[in-house]
Amino acid sequence: MTTTQLTLVQLDNYGPWTVTPEPRREMDLQTLQSRLFADIAQFIGGRGGYVFYTRFDNMIAVTNGIDREAHATLQESISNRYPVTISLGVGVAETPAAALNGATERIQAAGSAQDENRTEVLAGTFLTSEETGPEPIHIAHFDVNDATGKYTDQMNEFDSFIHIERSYASLMEYMRKAHGALSFFVGGDNIIAVCPELSADAYQDAIDHVESDVGIELKVGVGRDRTAHTAGIAAKHALEECRFDGTTVEFAEPPIPTSDD
Amino acid sequence: MTTTQLTLVQLDNYGPWTVTPEPRREMDLQTLQSRLFADIAQFIGGRGGYVFYTRFDNMIAVTNGIDREAHATLQESISNRYPVTISLGVGVAETPAAALNGATERIQAAGSAQDENRTEVLAGTFLTSEETGPEPIHIAHFDVNDATGKYTDQMNEFDSFIHIERSYASLMEYMRKAHGALSFFVGGDNIIAVCPELSADAYQDAIDHVESDVGIELKVGVGRDRTAHTAGIAAKHALEECRFDGTTVEFAEPPIPTSDD
Amino acid sequence: MTTTQLTLVQLDNYGPWTVTPEPRREMDLQTLQSRLFADIAQFIGGRGGYVFYTRFDNMIAVTNGIDREAHATLQESISNRYPVTISLGVGVAETPAAALNGATERIQAAGSAQDENRTEVLAGTFLTSEETGPEPIHIAHFDVNDATGKYTDQMNEFDSFIHIERSYASLMEYMRKAHGALSFFVGGDNIIAVCPELSADAYQDAIDHVESDVGIELKVGVGRDRTAHTAGIAAKHALEECRFDGTTVEFAEPPIPTSDD
Amino acid sequence: MTTTQLTLVQLDNYGPWTVTPEPRREMDLQTLQSRLFADIAQFIGGRGGYVFYTRFDNMIAVTNGIDREAHATLQESISNRYPVTISLGVGVAETPAAALNGATERIQAAGSAQDENRTEVLAGTFLTSEETGPEPIHIAHFDVNDATGKYTDQMNEFDSFIHIERSYASLMEYMRKAHGALSFFVGGDNIIAVCPELSADAYQDAIDHVESDVGIELKVGVGRDRTAHTAGIAAKHALEECRFDGTTVEFAEPPIPTSDD
Repeated sequence: MTTTQLTLVQLDNYGPWTVTPEPRREMDLQTLQSRLFADIAQFIGGRGGYVFYTRFDNMIAVTNGIDREAHATLQESISNRYPVTISLGVGVAETPAAALNGATERIQAAGSAQDENRTEVLAGTFLTSEETGPEPIHIAHFDVNDATGKYTDQMNEFDSFIHIERSYASLMEYMRKAHGALSFFVGGDNIIAVCPELSADAYQDAIDHVESDVGIELKVGVGRDRTAHTAGIAAKHALEECRFDGTTVEFAEPPIPTSDD
Repeated sequence: MTTTQLTLVQLDNYGPWTVTPEPRREMDLQTLQSRLFADIAQFIGGRGGYVFYTRFDNMIAVTNGIDREAHATLQESISNRYPVTISLGVGVAETPAAALNGATERIQAAGSAQDENRTEVLAGTFLTSEETGPEPIHIAHFDVNDATGKYTDQMNEFDSFIHIERSYASLMEYMRKAHGALSFFVGGDNIIAVCPELSADAYQDAIDHVESDVGIELKVGVGRDRTAHTAGIAAKHALEECRFDGTTVEFAEPPIPTSDD
Repeated sequence: MTTTQLTLVQLDNYGPWTVTPEPRREMDLQTLQSRLFADIAQFIGGRGGYVFYTRFDNMIAVTNGIDREAHATLQESISNRYPVTISLGVGVAETPAAALNGATERIQAAGSAQDENRTEVLAGTFLTSEETGPEPIHIAHFDVNDATGKYTDQMNEFDSFIHIERSYASLMEYMRKAHGALSFFVGGDNIIAVCPELSADAYQDAIDHVESDVGIELKVGVGRDRTAHTAGIAAKHALEECRFDGTTVEFAEPPIPTSDD
Repeated sequence: MTTTQLTLVQLDNYGPWTVTPEPRREMDLQTLQSRLFADIAQFIGGRGGYVFYTRFDNMIAVTNGIDREAHATLQESISNRYPVTISLGVGVAETPAAALNGATERIQAAGSAQDENRTEVLAGTFLTSEETGPEPIHIAHFDVNDATGKYTDQMNEFDSFIHIERSYASLMEYMRKAHGALSFFVGGDNIIAVCPELSADAYQDAIDHVESDVGIELKVGVGRDRTAHTAGIAAKHALEECRFDGTTVEFAEPPIPTSDD
């Protein structure tokens, strides 16, 4: 059974800030957003978690094994170094979507994302490793079959991107509705999904859905472990197996041991 | 008439690098990608251009006013500071899509994105300001009406994101097909489109299309100027007008003068 | 009694890399060096440690409480994101200088800093918190009395810097020889020293030495705790006391409790 | 004849900010300072200039060829992305020290570095390339003979650093007093000096002074050109000549042509 701890990272009152007193240079906003994400990725990633940029003003993190104190340190460090602050809501549930519900509600309960008096919320419940089974996190790493040969080397980059984007839009909605899984585009032709326990057939169905929906062929490697990082590395190895063997769905079995185990 | 200079930034042989000799930590890849984008945003943005992260291993930049020498400096600086290198293809055309065709073809002609012997391509034609009219760049800045009230403060963040993502998928395909315009999600509920000359009716049609297609209401501010930055700032001011006046399409007229003019 | 765990971070074969195949742009090297330091500061700092930039190609960190696995993660993460790699030597001793001896010897034993075959050394012994008393780390935070009024607002910046630099050169040599303490300039008019157990008289003697040697008046706050961060925050509070009370040496007593305790 | 345009970058009211409302985490301050420096290095460096971190809250830049508009863009971009702002004073003179006098006075005239109402000063005169001869900038790049063999591989890192630091302290004071040149430690065993026109004998005298003063042997390559970057690259090539030929002072003659010429 999966037990996912999810953290919603929400920039406080960010929209109004971007246009106060005048609209700010877009490239400065893009720089700010992407560096803030990078810093959070280093903080969370160095502790075994994953974070996804999503909308940049709201980011979603898998934080099994990362406690309240570490969340507080992250929040303090961001406020020391950026002109904006972050609120953190944390939820725990069997499915990622349910965990995110809890995380989001905790922030919403404290006020609107554009309430200037609501800053640096830190609310939620934190999971200890004793409370979970040995494989609370399931990570599925999808990519597009031969994206370079079919798209990148063949059409203009925006049209390649349209194809990748279609596959992502189709997969994200399917996985969300069918399974309460959360899927994130992570660049190139890669999509990483945080999932509940799913069978190989369920993954095959998702891939079949995307192909019939938008005509794009995916494959997937699945890893399961105590942290997003270790499950994710196992998923990447399983995806490499798909690549070498020409298969569509591979589970890492057993998980690849790593130094973070 | 618009005259857009577009640059395709393509990481050289990046996919294979991410799994050699073993799959690399995902959060390190995310950090690398987003910081590389941020550095390019600072470099291009400080010279009046715009760059969009797109797939991160391929980024698209509007580079009117940025010459070959500056492109070479960017390329050299990245190779001095990152474990990866970039190729740059540049194209000029009336419509953004046609300009990107030229930019992409120049890189493709030099070899595959995954050809390890193809590194640091710098190819293309560069526009001088004398060759264009006074408003070669049109930037349209869209956002979602009351996204915070309807989505961010109401549903879990992933479901908010699904709605924003739908509006983006719908708009990007419509603008590409109808007008050869290139639209980019830039975070929050914001989409920036690089456009050819379009009427207010054409923008209204795009917004109507998205509403009928996916049920999401957009509004748009449009700016026109010599650089992406100055056109984009004008577009942001026009979008503020939509916000205050409750209108759907506003053109900045005349462009807001800025220090970069 | 103090028990300091020190880590020497040494860039592998960095000097030759900076001129191969041609000398690289100095501002790219400066950017690389300072961002690498910043990343290490975030990694070490988020875990309660301190790192000092020293010569940038060699940095010195106080790493009590940071284990071998975390060091390995740092090393892997740097190699994933930079064109250079780092070696890490770790030593433990009562005095900081003796701990650094051990740390440095472990790296030197593996080969020269410019041996291209010596990369990513990770060697040393790691302290567990059970092995130390409750205040193994002593941090002294010095600054210059009224540096803004006497220097920054009065003379050109280089001449201000010469005065600050003189006070640093004098203090660093004195503290090293007299006590085996390691002192680092950290910007502005601030010097942070990692010290063994020293009396208030010993600190006063150091300050008197600098004044008689180079004519610059310092004051100091001293903190003691389990980590560099918590000891350092206590030292900063003690230094604020000096500022408000007009005193020269203040000990934080008892240490200020913080969320990282 | 040299004509140096120097910019003083001064953080506004930074000291008080670091302790308000409470002393901030030192590693966050270190990260902020070094990343701010890195961003300025990229901005200035991409336009042919040099910047030195000096005290981090005050940085000194060589900005020949960088105009008022670019300075304003840098200032705006920093304020958009950091919790602190910068003031910029610019001076032009034959000797670097005289140019810095002018730059510093312009900022001092606007208020104290710790005056909370003095923010984002931008004051000074800017040089056009027409106003100078073809080689207005002279850059001297010094390093320590066999620093790795004599120090880094032999003694603990702090003791190596003490030796490098002594050579820097001795050289910086000598060059300042004898010639109005400004010398900056840039990491490793490297010192870069911004100089007026000096003979080979004058450089030899400086090196002799350091050897007799502190017993450390330096060598130097000197470059002259229109920008700090091109003069600096020429200096690096000249220093490589010293290394290969075993000489102590080499002038690049003629300057190495580069893409930024």
